[in-house]
Amino acid sequence: MMELYIANKNYSSWSMRPWLVLTAFELPFREVLLPFPKERGTGHFKQDVLAINPNGKVPVLVHDGLMVWDSLAICEYLAEQFPERQLWPAGRAQRARARALAAEMHSGFQALRNHCGMNIRADLAEVGQTLWAEQPDLRDDVARVCQIWSERPDPGGFLCGDFSIADAFYAPVVWRLKSYALPVNEDSQYYMQTMLQHPAMQAWEQAAKQEQDWVNYLEPYQSEPSSS
Amino acid sequence: MMELYIANKNYSSWSMRPWLVLTAFELPFREVLLPFPKERGTGHFKQDVLAINPNGKVPVLVHDGLMVWDSLAICEYLAEQFPERQLWPAGRAQRARARALAAEMHSGFQALRNHCGMNIRADLAEVGQTLWAEQPDLRDDVARVCQIWSERPDPGGFLCGDFSIADAFYAPVVWRLKSYALPVNEDSQYYMQTMLQHPAMQAWEQAAKQEQDWVNYLEPYQSEPSSS
Ligand SMILES: N[C@@H](CCC(=O)N[C@@H](CS)C(=O)NCC(=O)O)C(=O)O
Ligand SMILES: N[C@@H](CCC(=O)N[C@@H](CS)C(=O)NCC(=O)O)C(=O)O
Repeated sequence: MMELYIANKNYSSWSMRPWLVLTAFELPFREVLLPFPKERGTGHFKQDVLAINPNGKVPVLVHDGLMVWDSLAICEYLAEQFPERQLWPAGRAQRARARALAAEMHSGFQALRNHCGMNIRADLAEVGQTLWAEQPDLRDDVARVCQIWSERPDPGGFLCGDFSIADAFYAPVVWRLKSYALPVNEDSQYYMQTMLQHPAMQAWEQAAKQEQDWVNYLEPYQSEPSSS
Repeated sequence: MMELYIANKNYSSWSMRPWLVLTAFELPFREVLLPFPKERGTGHFKQDVLAINPNGKVPVLVHDGLMVWDSLAICEYLAEQFPERQLWPAGRAQRARARALAAEMHSGFQALRNHCGMNIRADLAEVGQTLWAEQPDLRDDVARVCQIWSERPDPGGFLCGDFSIADAFYAPVVWRLKSYALPVNEDSQYYMQTMLQHPAMQAWEQAAKQEQDWVNYLEPYQSEPSSS
């Protein structure tokens, strides 16, 4: 049985990707959740992760005694181990495009990442409005996302046809755009709806919203609600 | 014949990766060099790139009418098109490790990227000394690089055995550490030498050093030598 080590579902955008792929393609796995500490550097998160991955980061997949780190490498590994599931699109052109989209997400969109940390349960619409007005880099990132989302082969479908690894890579952005209520074109709104209705996305969302942990260093825009 | 669109060899770290892979594995291709403008936003670089890639970035591979962008996606595409060449290691474990290393490089090492832009012909040892003293994030990035470079299966060899895509992904870092003369452990020095002696690296280096262009926005630490 494969094991996937992840962090909090509300916050951990990198963890989300391989989890969605495993879930969407019904690959059997056991999830191990290592919650982030409340304050950076405290608790045993780092120590627990380092015990399995010298890089000290999640997600991590363990399969048949092999430890694989990094969300994209994990997805490539899964695609190779389970070729019959077609985790990447079957056709040469759509497969190349799907990989380009995933790799572009992996290495880019720094402004979107830095300003709009994933926070599924949060309503940060007001913060989003300010960021939108003040951060041209953020507007550029969103423009590129909208361009990508508008170039789907079938306007009612996923990025490269059926749900694939490429969609899993843009899933955290769906949440970012939603939480911060950033303005997107109609095609992109439609893609967001399609994604939000996917059973794997809904399962992750539900679990995220049930989490109780408050991670201070991932909450730059809110203070902890007092439990009165 | 494949075409690879790249920017200046002295500066363009992303371009270097697929170029090294194509060259090292003797895959026939035609190189198209689109030089960066002297000042950001001037000249016709952006327009020329946009004509082939809506993302506006190099490298871009064109093969059999298909346009593939992003250095990692291009390498995965090549690995798939030419399976007999083994662009990734043949064994399951080393292949997973090679992909994890490439993907980690693709998405990380922001401090190294931001502070130490690739500049092959430059001697930036003094700048490097100051950066080393003042930037803890940079020291962390280099520590992780040294950890990776020290975990080679054969201490005299490449990252995952024979030269593979993983090495191409760390090639720009070899140049960064060399130009800025950042301190690395002995194992890593040895890896750097191994890389610098690879024929594909030497071909790129030679071409980079013959380039005459000065790109102002990629030269934060030097002013243009006057041609007296
Ligand atoms: N490129 C990596 C990034 C992984 C990453 O940054 N993970 C975060 C959590 S979402 C982490 O483990 N951070 C802990 C730390 O840096 O201490 C991937 O795709 O898996
Ligand atoms: N993730 C991309 C990054 C490509 C990239 O940033 N390329 C730079 C040149 S090294 C570029 O084209 N910059 C031009 C621009 O942004 O205008 C890849 O791996 O290919």
